[in-house]
Amino acid sequence: MDGPCLRTQTGCGSQKRAPTTITAIRLTPVLVADPPLLNTQGVHQPYTPRLIVEVTTAGGATGLGETYGDTKYLDIARPLADALAGRPVTDLNALPRIAAEVCGDSPAATGAGDVTAAGLRGVQTAGKLRLSVLSGFEVACLDAWGQLTGLPVHALLGGKVRDRVDYSAYLFYRWAAHPGGRGEPDDWGAALDPDGIVAQARRFRDTYGFRSFKLKGGVFEPAREIAAVRALAAAFPGHPLRLDPNGAWSVPTSLKAARELQDVLEYLEDPTSTTGHMAEVAAGTDLPLATNMCVTTFDEIREAFTRDAVQVVLADHHYWGGLRSTRELAAVCRTFGVGLAMHSNTHLGISLAAMTHVAATVPGLRYACDTHYPWQTEDVLTERLAFTDGALPVPDAPGLGVTLDRERLAALHARWLADDGTFRDRDDAAAMRAADPEWVTPRVPRW
Amino acid sequence: MDGPCLRTQTGCGSQKRAPTTITAIRLTPVLVADPPLLNTQGVHQPYTPRLIVEVTTAGGATGLGETYGDTKYLDIARPLADALAGRPVTDLNALPRIAAEVCGDSPAATGAGDVTAAGLRGVQTAGKLRLSVLSGFEVACLDAWGQLTGLPVHALLGGKVRDRVDYSAYLFYRWAAHPGGRGEPDDWGAALDPDGIVAQARRFRDTYGFRSFKLKGGVFEPAREIAAVRALAAAFPGHPLRLDPNGAWSVPTSLKAARELQDVLEYLEDPTSTTGHMAEVAAGTDLPLATNMCVTTFDEIREAFTRDAVQVVLADHHYWGGLRSTRELAAVCRTFGVGLAMHSNTHLGISLAAMTHVAATVPGLRYACDTHYPWQTEDVLTERLAFTDGALPVPDAPGLGVTLDRERLAALHARWLADDGTFRDRDDAAAMRAADPEWVTPRVPRW
Repeated sequence: MDGPCLRTQTGCGSQKRAPTTITAIRLTPVLVADPPLLNTQGVHQPYTPRLIVEVTTAGGATGLGETYGDTKYLDIARPLADALAGRPVTDLNALPRIAAEVCGDSPAATGAGDVTAAGLRGVQTAGKLRLSVLSGFEVACLDAWGQLTGLPVHALLGGKVRDRVDYSAYLFYRWAAHPGGRGEPDDWGAALDPDGIVAQARRFRDTYGFRSFKLKGGVFEPAREIAAVRALAAAFPGHPLRLDPNGAWSVPTSLKAARELQDVLEYLEDPTSTTGHMAEVAAGTDLPLATNMCVTTFDEIREAFTRDAVQVVLADHHYWGGLRSTRELAAVCRTFGVGLAMHSNTHLGISLAAMTHVAATVPGLRYACDTHYPWQTEDVLTERLAFTDGALPVPDAPGLGVTLDRERLAALHARWLADDGTFRDRDDAAAMRAADPEWVTPRVPRW
Repeated sequence: MDGPCLRTQTGCGSQKRAPTTITAIRLTPVLVADPPLLNTQGVHQPYTPRLIVEVTTAGGATGLGETYGDTKYLDIARPLADALAGRPVTDLNALPRIAAEVCGDSPAATGAGDVTAAGLRGVQTAGKLRLSVLSGFEVACLDAWGQLTGLPVHALLGGKVRDRVDYSAYLFYRWAAHPGGRGEPDDWGAALDPDGIVAQARRFRDTYGFRSFKLKGGVFEPAREIAAVRALAAAFPGHPLRLDPNGAWSVPTSLKAARELQDVLEYLEDPTSTTGHMAEVAAGTDLPLATNMCVTTFDEIREAFTRDAVQVVLADHHYWGGLRSTRELAAVCRTFGVGLAMHSNTHLGISLAAMTHVAATVPGLRYACDTHYPWQTEDVLTERLAFTDGALPVPDAPGLGVTLDRERLAALHARWLADDGTFRDRDDAAAMRAADPEWVTPRVPRW
């Protein structure tokens, strides 16, 4: 594929179909190894589902996208893939309408898939599921479009305003291994106390050069997590630190923690659940509050911003419906003086590349982006993305600038095929029950 | 220019420079005939200055843009054109930074060019001037980029979501001719009372098919303008009507007019000046208030939206810094439940095409867009854009889909060259003094 033009009627080629026309979409669900990382809901499963989207065009380009791979996402992705065949990869503004049309009757769309407000993404709705699915298609379309024109994805978004994107170390309480020895082993060992967290942070810094550190909290009682943050502050004086209890705390607990950590935290992330509770906390502290729980769609912004409930939104292109919507979110945040950072869930290199392209185009991105990528030892790319000094260079190759490794993809898909259903739907509480049969998803506030 | 690819290193061509690289920018100020249209500041001059921007790339494309042509805009456009040579047409996110850098010391940038809050665009600042100038460059870059890839500008903005864009008839109180017989004659005659306005509206409807009617007010005492709107309502029952006094009224006058016109107006546009006064009016009426005066930059949104001062923002890509920023404005408005329509100042076909492309991509555009275009009998295109049933079809040709007529451009530029300075800077109050030597720009509120 050597740079054909996109002209429909005339041009380099003589196809009747425009080079941008989608001729095929391949969906490949995979299961990816995930370490036993703890959060307030439970623990990561040994394997987590992801969906790899390949959009092929008449011009011979194949673009890559990636999104959640749970059954309820696949149920939306399949009809959406069918509906997009024959349309141009450039027709991105139509994606929400098409997704709503083809998914109108899916169980997910009718609300049958709703989960509680304690979910790690707040209340899950059919609309949120659709946005997550179409984000994978949007990224794949942009990748294909970029390849067809020789332009990097960031150029299709108006061009990069920085040459590198800073990422943050994502620290987790974790076990040395999954219960019963399931999953893929690693050599990180357990991290269940301040010393363990500091050791984990040191390894992240030494290996990747990360300067910012985020601790996933909501796992242990607040005093224990506050002690871990203070240990990080002592070990890495002056480095930006964050703590994310995933909404597990009450308003008083959040306010107490904010007071105790005000001098060392860059921001406190989702200490408590719901916009109303976040607003109460925000009113009682000068520490900025960040969220990827109470503001994850445009519909949730108005109340949160007018109540000054959050000072930083953690964008996630999977949540917000793609890279272009992420840029719109950034515009809304700029307009209202709300900061922007970037959230991450378990993901592979395709999504990391997508995050890097869009982050490169957003003016005023003051915070390092979160990423789980170092925890994912498996990928579907020929070459892993490599952090240097805690950052990724912004790719200038056409499209996303990543290449699919079909053997690796096939191997991870084979694992998905062989799975008996245990891991095809991520369920951190179910994974926790492998260690603690009595475990139920905690009600919030937990503390 | 037959669809070369944009690849930098390899591809269809063998240029060392990428086809997207800007090789030359030509700036051509013109003077365009303008009828004696009245507004609260005075009257349109016989000729109004516009600037035509041509961006030529290494790939052989020449993109067109258009913006204000007054001296203070030209003073910014010239160094910006110099700074953009050698950069890619895709590098649009960098435009605000580059414009700020190269214009940092211009008189306009230092605030020397500020005008009063009574200006038709609210308070004019250096930042607003820069945005208006760079909008012309952004449109020209998009046009060139579209030509290089065979894609219409709307596709570069993510694709059209409608095939036609509705426009509104823009009714003006006007004289039959300019004072002293200056300027170019036309056959519209005077319109200074309800009958004249209704006759004007009929001609607009019969000629162009417009279904929405906007009356530029703030010219006569409110009762006279309210009578004209009621005459329109009687002549065109059920048609959307708007009245725009350009901020000339007090809060009590605005509230009284809102009560009297509530049953016939689609919205009331800028009845009074400043966000605070608009908020007072909005609190006292159910009639939606629209603005292109108190909200013309992102910095002005937060106060206006949180105070619910405006229910519709009239976007203008010249004001907001281009088509991509206009889409961001639309996203902010959607997020806050604020409607979007489109403002127009005296403009030619290049800007009308640009308006049409961006309007085609914005979901939920419920209001017909304003346009002065029917009042401009002169243009720089080989073919005028033609309204059918009050709408323009969305062009699917590469780029903007318009072609420059160099002879017409040269003729309008020759008029600018020959001008002794009288018309190079639009000044509606000065134009009014040709008829009324005692005229001064009215203070607001005027009524």
